[in-house]
Amino acid sequence: MTAAARFISFEGIDGSGKSTQARLLHEALIAQGRDAILTREPGGSPGAEDIRKLLLEGAAERWSSETELLLFTAARRDHLERTIRPALDAGRIVICDRFADSTRMYQGLRGDDLRALVDRLHDLMIAQEPDLTILIDIDPETGLGRAVARGGDELRFEGFGGALQARMRQGFLDLAAEAPERITVIDGARDVELVARDVRDVVEARLP
Amino acid sequence: MTAAARFISFEGIDGSGKSTQARLLHEALIAQGRDAILTREPGGSPGAEDIRKLLLEGAAERWSSETELLLFTAARRDHLERTIRPALDAGRIVICDRFADSTRMYQGLRGDDLRALVDRLHDLMIAQEPDLTILIDIDPETGLGRAVARGGDELRFEGFGGALQARMRQGFLDLAAEAPERITVIDGARDVELVARDVRDVVEARLP
Ligand SMILES: Nc1ncnc2c1ncn2[C@@H]1O[C@H](COP(=O)(O)OP(=O)(O)O)[C@@H](O)[C@H]1O
Ligand SMILES: Nc1ncnc2c1ncn2[C@@H]1O[C@H](COP(=O)(O)OP(=O)(O)O)[C@@H](O)[C@H]1O
Ligand SMILES: [Mg+2]
Ligand SMILES: [Mg+2]
Repeated sequence: MTAAARFISFEGIDGSGKSTQARLLHEALIAQGRDAILTREPGGSPGAEDIRKLLLEGAAERWSSETELLLFTAARRDHLERTIRPALDAGRIVICDRFADSTRMYQGLRGDDLRALVDRLHDLMIAQEPDLTILIDIDPETGLGRAVARGGDELRFEGFGGALQARMRQGFLDLAAEAPERITVIDGARDVELVARDVRDVVEARLP
Repeated sequence: MTAAARFISFEGIDGSGKSTQARLLHEALIAQGRDAILTREPGGSPGAEDIRKLLLEGAAERWSSETELLLFTAARRDHLERTIRPALDAGRIVICDRFADSTRMYQGLRGDDLRALVDRLHDLMIAQEPDLTILIDIDPETGLGRAVARGGDELRFEGFGGALQARMRQGFLDLAAEAPERITVIDGARDVELVARDVRDVVEARLP
């Protein structure tokens, strides 16, 4: 038996369908009369959105990996304190489009030293994991094709090129293998509705 | 014999005369034909100045102590990477108006847990101390009187009320007692020129 899940995150490479599925899950839970909020990272609280703007503005080399990591962590801390924890304390379900696993991949894959730093900074300043993480798995070509078609500012954060996307995909799968009680992998290379049904099945089995 | 000092910080409570003395020392070194830069925290590099703006804007309760600490650390990391280390690597002297000791006091005095967090975050993400820190010591009433007369946006960061200023003063003196090789205490309740002469004497004895 696994524990009840009220804090649920969506993870996966760009174009995997995280935002789509997070939104569909939120709509399904609301339709069932559940009290759920939909939030996202980076951002998710007024302060964190301002930090997100700093991260998105300017040249790609504007911040070093370490400074960027500190800014993401500041945004996450604000998001956690001002949005996520108050909602959980009020008994609500929190659906979060990306959380700390994204930092483990996007910053952490830049090198072993950086990955160790990501983990230590998380332990020191965040020290919270979702109860349940849905990892939407997809091959990089399909994901990249969808993301390019979609456009939008998120692309600022995405390393282009199939090689990096392939490392990310494998990195996410490795995380899932390390934390199978928390992370459930769902095949995202199918029809939106089929993926959404699997997501609902996993979540409903874990709701309080 | 103490080591040569090329990275020099000024610390002390508000109104003690840090900015005045940092500027006068810079002018004196330049007049001697030395290659020195004057910088300050929070800020000191374009990215850090943008983070400083985020910290100064908005209501006093806008950020929690922990988020504020992360933002100050992000700004310091950027300042160190983009301004301080390149200058030191080029053989220049760096004079910095406030550095990590200010965080130890302004954030760290909010509680023992916070002080421990300040130290751990510093060790993880900054891990650099000035070679020499000039602590300008002054009684809180004099400092506060000067700071109020001066005005300016720095007051956003200052806890008003003599009790907090008195704790800060003692906190700075405790730091100096813990790290006497690095921190030199100078009496700031004297004529600007007398203080400046003492600063120059201490610095000149330690220059490479
Ligand atoms: N299962 C799917 N099949 C086809 N297209 C999809 C599917 N899921 C999402 N999309 C589309 O792909 C693009 C990227 O989806 P999105 O949810 O924004 O991905 P992510 O948030 O993971 O980057 C969007 O245009 C979306 O409408
Ligand atoms: N030794 C001094 N005696 C009298 N006034 C001073 C002295 N040093 C600085 N001041 C004045 O006090 C105010 C605060 O000084 P400043 O250097 O800005 O302090 P800090 O940077 O430590 O807050 C300024 O108006 C400055 O001109
Ligand atoms: Mg998305
Ligand atoms: Mg000053």
